[in-house]
Amino acid sequence: MKKLINAVGDVVPDTLRGMAAAHPSLRVDVENRIVLRASGPTSGKVGLVSGGGSGHEPLHAGFVGFGMLDAACPGEVFTSPVPDQMIEATKAVDGGAGVLHIVKNYTGDVLNFEMAAELCADEGARVLSVLVDDDVAVRDSTYTAGRRGTGATVFVEKMAGALAEQGAPLEAVAAMARTVDDRSRSFGVAFSAGTVPAAGKPTFDLGPAEIELGIGIHGEPGRSRERFREARELVRLAMDALNTDLPFSGDVLVMVNGMGATPLMELYVAYGEVDAYLREKGATATRCLVGNYVTSLDMAGFSITTCLLDAELTSLWDHPVETPGLRWGR
Amino acid sequence: MKKLINAVGDVVPDTLRGMAAAHPSLRVDVENRIVLRASGPTSGKVGLVSGGGSGHEPLHAGFVGFGMLDAACPGEVFTSPVPDQMIEATKAVDGGAGVLHIVKNYTGDVLNFEMAAELCADEGARVLSVLVDDDVAVRDSTYTAGRRGTGATVFVEKMAGALAEQGAPLEAVAAMARTVDDRSRSFGVAFSAGTVPAAGKPTFDLGPAEIELGIGIHGEPGRSRERFREARELVRLAMDALNTDLPFSGDVLVMVNGMGATPLMELYVAYGEVDAYLREKGATATRCLVGNYVTSLDMAGFSITTCLLDAELTSLWDHPVETPGLRWGR
Repeated sequence: MKKLINAVGDVVPDTLRGMAAAHPSLRVDVENRIVLRASGPTSGKVGLVSGGGSGHEPLHAGFVGFGMLDAACPGEVFTSPVPDQMIEATKAVDGGAGVLHIVKNYTGDVLNFEMAAELCADEGARVLSVLVDDDVAVRDSTYTAGRRGTGATVFVEKMAGALAEQGAPLEAVAAMARTVDDRSRSFGVAFSAGTVPAAGKPTFDLGPAEIELGIGIHGEPGRSRERFREARELVRLAMDALNTDLPFSGDVLVMVNGMGATPLMELYVAYGEVDAYLREKGATATRCLVGNYVTSLDMAGFSITTCLLDAELTSLWDHPVETPGLRWGR
Repeated sequence: MKKLINAVGDVVPDTLRGMAAAHPSLRVDVENRIVLRASGPTSGKVGLVSGGGSGHEPLHAGFVGFGMLDAACPGEVFTSPVPDQMIEATKAVDGGAGVLHIVKNYTGDVLNFEMAAELCADEGARVLSVLVDDDVAVRDSTYTAGRRGTGATVFVEKMAGALAEQGAPLEAVAAMARTVDDRSRSFGVAFSAGTVPAAGKPTFDLGPAEIELGIGIHGEPGRSRERFREARELVRLAMDALNTDLPFSGDVLVMVNGMGATPLMELYVAYGEVDAYLREKGATATRCLVGNYVTSLDMAGFSITTCLLDAELTSLWDHPVETPGLRWGR
């Protein structure tokens, strides 16, 4: 295992120390594993808290900042953070307008965020939660009851974050987060597995011409193992899966996401195919992200996430954002 | 070879088609392989043109936009673009204040850009060139006479681009580009080789616990093959090489760059070590980039590029930039 790390047990704190050094816009509590905006809670604004296992960077800590999250709670690699982190983060970002928890649908994350929300409520905080469950590949998986939460998390954090920044109340921000999740779908394809540092070997094995269709972001099995094919066909397989679940129409936000070890060049090749596919279906990719946003350590492969836009969602997408992982237009 | 591509011969045009679809801020001439700002030449502004082999994305096409390049000329993978592309690009971006060619020091790129500049001058254009040669690993290499041009290209394009945007004359923009190159140094480390699509197999072989110190961005040999070590030691080896060549002092701009297959998490771990190293030397990392900026297809590994800042350079670094690969603050 050749990883650019120190001791296996120090990966998460070392990552956080690096983020703290790199981004003065963040306040990073390395010991308690909480990443906050350095500017502190925004008075009168709904606070947004997310979190999940590490290894998916820039998700979530890279999306802390103006227009997106107020706090992120990173767990160990591919492991849920604990309620104490979530409670501390919730308290730290509460600017008096309540706090929204954005939770990817994995059993551990769901349980821990539920416990944290209850304990915060007991202390008088107003907390709502929204579950992200956009991955159409499988209904249940190793880590989940129901659909897995993957790429749509970026869309939910961005658009709910924009609405919160505009001063909307907690219920409206939560409703928008649910709307974005409802309109979003994801599908992933793995070319090779990532290696969890503590395990020291790849999560699964694929033959030299084999791929996993519908891969999960922790390397969970997808729908099937298939022979490798050209980008056009792989994109079509993924887009067909999305279109079957929620047919494309109108304006579409697209993310072509690298799993960690896929070059940007190849992601652009795939994006060209996505764009062509949508045209064929009479839809239009009006907004996009092409790059590494929800990674799976050093997995090679890609995922496609789409969201059916309307005027309001487009405007929230275009709202200024200023985070290490995503920024434009302020 | 599992690459997210269609036919091997279509990689570059397919990439450009994807970029065109993804970024309406760019005007992409897929046939002639030129990437321009959609807004056209900026009247009275010095035009900045760069280019080089493909496979290093987002370099260079991803750095076309406000505050950085006016045009990029992508060659085939790891192959210089041809003079015709450079001539077309130079004409297209000339807003009446002359054009600067930013050329990474590889024999093919240098010859072709020289030829293009001469032919443009024959037609009455004012063209200056600046050579980027920041890689301290080796003096000559497979592709170069003298030092290789690598990560400092991003710094040169950014800071010369900012000065051009502020209306400085051609000579001043060229001088600034040279200053940035003079103050910048790079060193790369490979964990595994990338695969050129047309070759179909990795450029070189490394053992399971072996690394290449001083790797070039095309997989050219570096200084030595060594055993794999923890991040702290690898960063120290790289930083020692930089510090020996140009001792660190004062404010330093740092890029911790992924070669294509290295997760962001690990780059942050490395950045933490870079930050600590500079403190030890009495210098301070006041600005940074952590991510994939000058990649080598799917090579695993990292490079560190540093630039000794002063007030003017810091101000140029902070100048707004709006490109697919880099953006802030407009």
